[in-house]
Amino acid sequence: MLRRRYLVAYDIRSPHRLRLVAKRMEDFGDRAQYSVFLCDLTRADVADMTYTLDQIIDPTEDRILIVDLGQPDDTSRFEFLGRRRPLPATGHRVV
Amino acid sequence: MLRRRYLVAYDIRSPHRLRLVAKRMEDFGDRAQYSVFLCDLTRADVADMTYTLDQIIDPTEDRILIVDLGQPDDTSRFEFLGRRRPLPATGHRVV
Repeated sequence: MLRRRYLVAYDIRSPHRLRLVAKRMEDFGDRAQYSVFLCDLTRADVADMTYTLDQIIDPTEDRILIVDLGQPDDTSRFEFLGRRRPLPATGHRVV
Repeated sequence: MLRRRYLVAYDIRSPHRLRLVAKRMEDFGDRAQYSVFLCDLTRADVADMTYTLDQIIDPTEDRILIVDLGQPDDTSRFEFLGRRRPLPATGHRVV
């Protein structure tokens, strides 16, 4: 199953929804920053993730940005300043 | 001058440094989320930006992630849930 790497960044207004989003995002990828996840997903996973997030957020208040970064093994596009978390091992298994 | 689109996401521990980073990032691109900017930059701009940010952050506490997203006019890689800000007009001029 072909996976692509996605960056998911979110601004969630309510602390309650923020906790829910963060919790569910752990099913889909690895936390890169406080409100940024990197996820290696199939198209079906992406659909599942967006459906899941849509059930949680208030679309009039919250923002979620999903960026398709292409092949998971292309690590050359990342640069870090300061502390860094490891990039996801290629092909994160969605449980 | 060839520009590429970069996503810059940051976790800055001190409010003072956070304000400085946010302020300086406005010189390099457009805010997409609270701590995420999209920037259309030449390689020289990227060097200038990373030098500028390196002078502000505490590398033992703060995190900055810079992701090369490729050609500025490729908007197909972006998906938004909830509220959204417009993508930068292609070819942001760095002042």
